[in-house]
Amino acid sequence: RAADELLETLAQKGVISMEDYEKLKAQRKTAPTVITDDGFRIATGDGGWSVQVGALQQLDLAAYKDDKIDLADGTEMRRSRLSAAGTFLKDWQYRVEYEFATSSAALTDAYVTYNAYKPVLVTLGQFKPPFGMEALSQDKSATFMERALPFYLVSPVVVRAPGAMLSSSGTNWSAAGGIFGEPIGNAQSGDEGYGAAARMSFAPLFTGSRIVHLGLSGQWRDPTQDNSSNTTGQKFDTVRFRAKPESNILAQRFVDTGELTDVKRYTFAGVEFAAQVDALSLQSEYQQVSVKRGAPANLDFDTWYAQLAYTLTGEARPYRVDRGVFEGIKPAKNFARGAGWGAFEVAARISELDLTDGPVNGGRERNATAAVSWYLNPFLRVSANYVKVLDVKGGAFDGEEPSVWQMRLQIAI
Amino acid sequence: RAADELLETLAQKGVISMEDYEKLKAQRKTAPTVITDDGFRIATGDGGWSVQVGALQQLDLAAYKDDKIDLADGTEMRRSRLSAAGTFLKDWQYRVEYEFATSSAALTDAYVTYNAYKPVLVTLGQFKPPFGMEALSQDKSATFMERALPFYLVSPVVVRAPGAMLSSSGTNWSAAGGIFGEPIGNAQSGDEGYGAAARMSFAPLFTGSRIVHLGLSGQWRDPTQDNSSNTTGQKFDTVRFRAKPESNILAQRFVDTGELTDVKRYTFAGVEFAAQVDALSLQSEYQQVSVKRGAPANLDFDTWYAQLAYTLTGEARPYRVDRGVFEGIKPAKNFARGAGWGAFEVAARISELDLTDGPVNGGRERNATAAVSWYLNPFLRVSANYVKVLDVKGGAFDGEEPSVWQMRLQIAI
Amino acid sequence: RAADELLETLAQKGVISMEDYEKLKAQRKTAPTVITDDGFRIATGDGGWSVQVGALQQLDLAAYKDDKIDLADGTEMRRSRLSAAGTFLKDWQYRVEYEFATSSAALTDAYVTYNAYKPVLVTLGQFKPPFGMEALSQDKSATFMERALPFYLVSPVVVRAPGAMLSSSGTNWSAAGGIFGEPIGNAQSGDEGYGAAARMSFAPLFTGSRIVHLGLSGQWRDPTQDNSSNTTGQKFDTVRFRAKPESNILAQRFVDTGELTDVKRYTFAGVEFAAQVDALSLQSEYQQVSVKRGAPANLDFDTWYAQLAYTLTGEARPYRVDRGVFEGIKPAKNFARGAGWGAFEVAARISELDLTDGPVNGGRERNATAAVSWYLNPFLRVSANYVKVLDVKGGAFDGEEPSVWQMRLQIAI
Repeated sequence: RAADELLETLAQKGVISMEDYEKLKAQRKTAPTVITDDGFRIATGDGGWSVQVGALQQLDLAAYKDDKIDLADGTEMRRSRLSAAGTFLKDWQYRVEYEFATSSAALTDAYVTYNAYKPVLVTLGQFKPPFGMEALSQDKSATFMERALPFYLVSPVVVRAPGAMLSSSGTNWSAAGGIFGEPIGNAQSGDEGYGAAARMSFAPLFTGSRIVHLGLSGQWRDPTQDNSSNTTGQKFDTVRFRAKPESNILAQRFVDTGELTDVKRYTFAGVEFAAQVDALSLQSEYQQVSVKRGAPANLDFDTWYAQLAYTLTGEARPYRVDRGVFEGIKPAKNFARGAGWGAFEVAARISELDLTDGPVNGGRERNATAAVSWYLNPFLRVSANYVKVLDVKGGAFDGEEPSVWQMRLQIAI
Repeated sequence: RAADELLETLAQKGVISMEDYEKLKAQRKTAPTVITDDGFRIATGDGGWSVQVGALQQLDLAAYKDDKIDLADGTEMRRSRLSAAGTFLKDWQYRVEYEFATSSAALTDAYVTYNAYKPVLVTLGQFKPPFGMEALSQDKSATFMERALPFYLVSPVVVRAPGAMLSSSGTNWSAAGGIFGEPIGNAQSGDEGYGAAARMSFAPLFTGSRIVHLGLSGQWRDPTQDNSSNTTGQKFDTVRFRAKPESNILAQRFVDTGELTDVKRYTFAGVEFAAQVDALSLQSEYQQVSVKRGAPANLDFDTWYAQLAYTLTGEARPYRVDRGVFEGIKPAKNFARGAGWGAFEVAARISELDLTDGPVNGGRERNATAAVSWYLNPFLRVSANYVKVLDVKGGAFDGEEPSVWQMRLQIAI
Repeated sequence: RAADELLETLAQKGVISMEDYEKLKAQRKTAPTVITDDGFRIATGDGGWSVQVGALQQLDLAAYKDDKIDLADGTEMRRSRLSAAGTFLKDWQYRVEYEFATSSAALTDAYVTYNAYKPVLVTLGQFKPPFGMEALSQDKSATFMERALPFYLVSPVVVRAPGAMLSSSGTNWSAAGGIFGEPIGNAQSGDEGYGAAARMSFAPLFTGSRIVHLGLSGQWRDPTQDNSSNTTGQKFDTVRFRAKPESNILAQRFVDTGELTDVKRYTFAGVEFAAQVDALSLQSEYQQVSVKRGAPANLDFDTWYAQLAYTLTGEARPYRVDRGVFEGIKPAKNFARGAGWGAFEVAARISELDLTDGPVNGGRERNATAAVSWYLNPFLRVSANYVKVLDVKGGAFDGEEPSVWQMRLQIAI
């Protein structure tokens, strides 16, 4: 660094004494610097400490072309988050984030990671269990405004939970596994549930922006005891799966198992395939949940999606091999007066979620989605999505086939 | 800047090479500086990035001299806010603010402003629609503890809303206009409401602290569909106007239209007049709302206030010509041991809000208020207000004439 | 400071002019520095301004060995807080903190302290009234996961309240006294309550880590009017005392006075005794509350605890003589790869709370607790506690004697 060289020069020329030189050099270690790669981060010169106050705001607008039932158009803050994150004592990283878009403020992330034994990391606190590529991608980085239907199989149950996780990675693989309690804030009257989750990713091809990604995840959970909402009579251990049609402003969930009673345990399994050639990428996942019950029949539900994305301005989706996920596009040229226009991306997706099995008629939904995104710079994004509900078969919304126009302004700084 | 000159001198004297000089100069652009004009702001040397974490705390105390009904004395946090704001990529500014004084945390501001085309600014996100001088003044800067009654005509409906706004200003004028959705967090069962708002301000006299200010605002809104609280029977598009008596701790609103049913649309109009001669200022506004309805009669309500303020210590209220509002007083000398006492201000106000028209007997209220404020420094303020309800005519609180003693400690940093 | 000396040297050698020297020296006053003693604090060179964004996260896990009734095992965020604190205009300090572990976000601290008249400090805003040594210790610093039963006599009533306080301290004493309103957020239908609190601490022996501490506190309060939860019939001024068994995840409070009606006023009194010899410390408090009522009998409840703590790694608990409290242990060597293991502490405690007097059968509870704490560094702590409810006599949980295993991960940065 030039400043270090300056000190050296001054010492060599005798302008400052060696003693002062040492003192000034030590001071530089704790002197603050600002790093603006991914927001405004203040760090000490030696990188041993840093802090960043971040905000994620997603302002959504949706208009529904109603089919049978009336869906309410409107606006909402899809996510409205404040976070503090940083490094302390060189080897520790922390992150705390709160969500204010829900009716009462909620904790999302609260964890520390110890990285002195890199590439092995230890993470403690509340965070996302390792399951599913799109589920693990950052909330600001998903290609479409809403993640595909498979996400909604997992997320109502355990999108984030308190736990302990070990993770590691190499030049073309990543692996993570941990144990997790019941998500913070879930109501409880009986002993809380718990579980374990693990995921591996492998990139047989990974050269610059040419990537083939394979992934495998598994999760096992024991539900919270006696959590049925029966206010009278016997209580049961229950779980429930349901999903909105890849749009969040409406109130209706077109597929819904209702509360599944007498649940002993349930297990998720997922496989992932993704490939990228420069600006073009394919991404797909298939997931299944098996619900083991006492007296009633066991149940199996499954879900999948496949998406194709193309960046008109040529940028490739950055692949984080250490975590086995894609990050959001960073424009080659930011939008700026007389300088550039940012990045433009188009994408298409099909997805299916089948919540009907045996005695449970939750319905099966198929959606097709088209998306255009304008990344003005790494911190600002405008998206427009068109979701067509191709078909709802069974369940309370049988035959419902509306479509959705939705837009988002995202500020992530 | 002296540091730049130092580098230059060192280069000229050959202490450092030209190469090092260039490097060090580039480093200075991203080196952090602290700016404490208006709180603690950290910025990069070139001003391209900055961040400020802010807090606004208003701790209120009120004692009521009851007239007919019993009003509950007490304390409350009137506002308790945390904010993050700053600059990114030179041309963009953002601001995010949350309010914690309400029973559940709520988003107030969440917007970005693009200023590369100055003096034309583009603002996107959730913020205050341009309507009314006092409504647009900062919550920490109002002369009295509570804004005048006209504010309560607008604020329950649309104090802040998601939208897009264009604004501009010149040496003695400002103008802004935008379109806005339904405020975030409003309950909805039908399609959400929307509207448009615009405001112009003009200062025919503006020389230092001698100012004449004229303002004109208009706002048009379509209400959210089917938002009446009827739980059975037909739903209506409704709107409601009501106000507390310029004191917030009591629960009662003395004037209240109740829910106006079958509303097609409503429009606000407002005019402003303000004048300042050094420490003395006059400020007044008149506003009207016209409610267009289907079967029931159309309605018109109006409201006004006039206030006189005088700073005993001589400071003038700073006028922001680019936004057409006054800001809070900055003491010439801060309160500090053996140095000064801060600034003292006295003020008086009369205000009226008439919510009675045609079949709607919401009541008409007139208040007189006296205020003393002690600005210890730009960040700390103590206020004492005496509000006398001169008269409530009509409505559920007909003839109610209590008075209020209230005090506030404000920390805005 | 070395940097000042550098400037001086450069000036003396004529490399820079005296004018530039003065300018550069002035710039250094506002240049930011980072202080990492107790988190990441950014300050100006002259210390006149600083800011720190802090987070306190306590993730708890509890398993109950049930006695008669079923207690629900589980996890929770015991505390989840975000804070901003700092210095402004040299003589003022502020602190704002929010708690997100409660169902709706709540303000904890919001105050300013003026210290230009040191050692006399003036504090204004919402903060903890001066009462009780353990109650006043930082939430992150308590030896056990939950404070002893005496804390629960005071805390439901007035753990933090808006008020004004004067405090001072000397080489071996501290004193504080103030007046306080009703805690922010308490429901109210009548005039709000208020009170006064004062505390003195004195250390007859205070040499390094050998300490004898004596303390005396008193508090007087007038309850909020008509705050009984009777929905019909006469309203009363009430107060209620109750406590969980030094574990927070279960829902049951084993001792509970219920709502005490017709309360005129109540007064707390407390005495403290603590002693420390290096790594070994003893701490104990006795507290009493007297409830003065109208028609029903007056009431007296009392409570005490005594605890012994020993740091296996030799660190003494830091004593803050200016506030008369102990702070959390700072490890002599942090846990770090190949460097150290942090600090380990063991502790034992007995405590009692008797809420039975006259006509009120709230029950009397006695607990014994054993604790092990691992301080990895000043910011990370893992605790394991075993609480045995020795006896509940009287009240709704008469004879209940369960035990608790509980663990905590604390991130306080």
